[in-house]
Amino acid sequence: MTFDFEIIAADGNARAGILHTPHGDIPTPVFAPVGTAGTVKAVPPRDLKSLDVKLILSNTYHLLLRPGDDLVRDLGGLHRFMNWEGPILTDSGGFQVFSLAQINKIDDDGVTFRSHLDGSVMRLDPKRSMEIQQNLGADIIMAFDQCPPPTDRDEVSAAVERTHRWLAQCREAHPDDDEQALFGIVQGGVFPDLREKSARFVSEMDLKGHAIGGLAVGETKEAMYATLDDTLPCLPDHKPRYLMGVGEPDDLVEGAMRGVDIFDCVIPTRLARHGAAFTRDGRINLRNASFKRDEAPIDESLHNYASGFSRAYLRHLVVAKELLAHYLLSLHNIDFLTRHMETMRQAIIDGNLRDFAAQFLPRYLRRDLSIE
Amino acid sequence: MTFDFEIIAADGNARAGILHTPHGDIPTPVFAPVGTAGTVKAVPPRDLKSLDVKLILSNTYHLLLRPGDDLVRDLGGLHRFMNWEGPILTDSGGFQVFSLAQINKIDDDGVTFRSHLDGSVMRLDPKRSMEIQQNLGADIIMAFDQCPPPTDRDEVSAAVERTHRWLAQCREAHPDDDEQALFGIVQGGVFPDLREKSARFVSEMDLKGHAIGGLAVGETKEAMYATLDDTLPCLPDHKPRYLMGVGEPDDLVEGAMRGVDIFDCVIPTRLARHGAAFTRDGRINLRNASFKRDEAPIDESLHNYASGFSRAYLRHLVVAKELLAHYLLSLHNIDFLTRHMETMRQAIIDGNLRDFAAQFLPRYLRRDLSIE
Repeated sequence: MTFDFEIIAADGNARAGILHTPHGDIPTPVFAPVGTAGTVKAVPPRDLKSLDVKLILSNTYHLLLRPGDDLVRDLGGLHRFMNWEGPILTDSGGFQVFSLAQINKIDDDGVTFRSHLDGSVMRLDPKRSMEIQQNLGADIIMAFDQCPPPTDRDEVSAAVERTHRWLAQCREAHPDDDEQALFGIVQGGVFPDLREKSARFVSEMDLKGHAIGGLAVGETKEAMYATLDDTLPCLPDHKPRYLMGVGEPDDLVEGAMRGVDIFDCVIPTRLARHGAAFTRDGRINLRNASFKRDEAPIDESLHNYASGFSRAYLRHLVVAKELLAHYLLSLHNIDFLTRHMETMRQAIIDGNLRDFAAQFLPRYLRRDLSIE
Repeated sequence: MTFDFEIIAADGNARAGILHTPHGDIPTPVFAPVGTAGTVKAVPPRDLKSLDVKLILSNTYHLLLRPGDDLVRDLGGLHRFMNWEGPILTDSGGFQVFSLAQINKIDDDGVTFRSHLDGSVMRLDPKRSMEIQQNLGADIIMAFDQCPPPTDRDEVSAAVERTHRWLAQCREAHPDDDEQALFGIVQGGVFPDLREKSARFVSEMDLKGHAIGGLAVGETKEAMYATLDDTLPCLPDHKPRYLMGVGEPDDLVEGAMRGVDIFDCVIPTRLARHGAAFTRDGRINLRNASFKRDEAPIDESLHNYASGFSRAYLRHLVVAKELLAHYLLSLHNIDFLTRHMETMRQAIIDGNLRDFAAQFLPRYLRRDLSIE
């Protein structure tokens, strides 16, 4: 059944599952690359498919501003517009409104803001966010929430209340159907009691899935992991859990071990545009002079199209600011994270995710800390 | 035999041929996309192969500056470095030295200049140009020439003399072999007698092919065509003729009709980066608001990967400055020119190139003049 979530194996708190969507099945845990403005930057959809990417995210705020949700709807929806046949998740627009736009006013009903592109005054509220996401036509859509800095208790507490009221309005504007799954978002910053309260409230709304928002926005990794430890047990087991905006390889391990099913992040494509690439020995930057005559591929364990090019050539492309660098490094980084998730999923099925983590994390983090 | 040039059909002055090279056969007339710094900008070599591109050009000047010809040689040559198995042609470095670098001194033996990247003082002369091109390892290499503004008779005349002396030095530094074909370059600006003199001199050098340089540098199209009319009859029929730096669709028709076999130009990829695309109805710019809701592909006659995307989506990518626009529009433009050459080659074999030209040129030029 559409949006059924089957858990096929568990290993400690980690789970391997399948989320059924109108555009195909998503094996979980899964990492979703981000296609901000209806394109995963520099990567043709064909290549995402060849890498076996099962879910991508696109941003409501960016598509609302340009080209506009009505245009995307009139041209057949986002899948057809961007030529991607697989599942899509759209966010609510809230996060970008708070991080990119110039806010004019937050009130109990929504947010009035100026577009960061042309300064025009716009408004987003729960109903409008649902309307835009319906026009875009993603498989999974997100409730409109407020995401404040995670360490100011008064602000976080007020944002939790607002987020809960807005969630009820989203549900009203978008009743349950088989076309789009509405996920609710748990807020509460780094405060265990607020997270628990929010998780309980969101869980009671009978939604298709639950997200943990407001993390990876400046707090320490330890605080993020502790918040996951506090929050995940308050969410029901049988629905997918989505940790928003998280995609560092070590965070994916820590999240999966705690029971997260879905992750998304701009990191593979953003790092690529800065010349950086994931390897099992940590992140490297191809700009480094040590790669000048290095004939090896970025990471011997991968077999994507970028694997046919030497580090020396990739370094040349990065240094010469050649467009092909963005494509090849993005391909590599997305492949790395996609294979990483597949490996973890198999480890969960085999009951040895902890062994994988014990092997992966020290090797990855040692290099990461020494080179960056 | 390597570098044999077979003419399989003629139609008026036009010829259809096959040039055999160590990295494969090149059916002619052929258009070569330019991979300035060892990469056709934004297009993976895999895609060039899938478009049936048979020859690419790369620039000696750019590769000398970065990453350096010794590095490319040590890593197995340019084919291996950039992961392109097909034929490559490198220019001599002369044209870019004169157009990009800050010239310190031209003398009878060569040119001393400052790198446009870091200001370092470098020198190019016939011997060094041959050495660099041998290090890069292209199939076809070009003699080091001087390319002055084409309308100053005294300057052009002196450049012709210098180019001829330098050609003899190139031949001495690079004797005939089966690995790399040395082509000589005819100069002479827009002056028929200088062109004839230069063509005669170059023809007598027993080279593998002949190029016409110093055109498409600011003179009118009529002057370019007239110069081809003056020059081509002075070159022997049985060797390939290469018109350097020319790639507008109408110029390709005019050149092929006059007997040119090889063309190269940055135009398909450069136009793409400006949002422009070739169509049989002329060049269009996807930025134009008229394409905002246009669901058609750029040109119905093509069937490359970019053909699966609407003009509306491509316009969105161009307006949003998305990297994917460069890839998709470059793919389209290279496909357009490659199919254009294939169509002309077939027309030559069928004996109806003039009919094709009479059909293509008015349709292409009408739109080109009205929209640009």
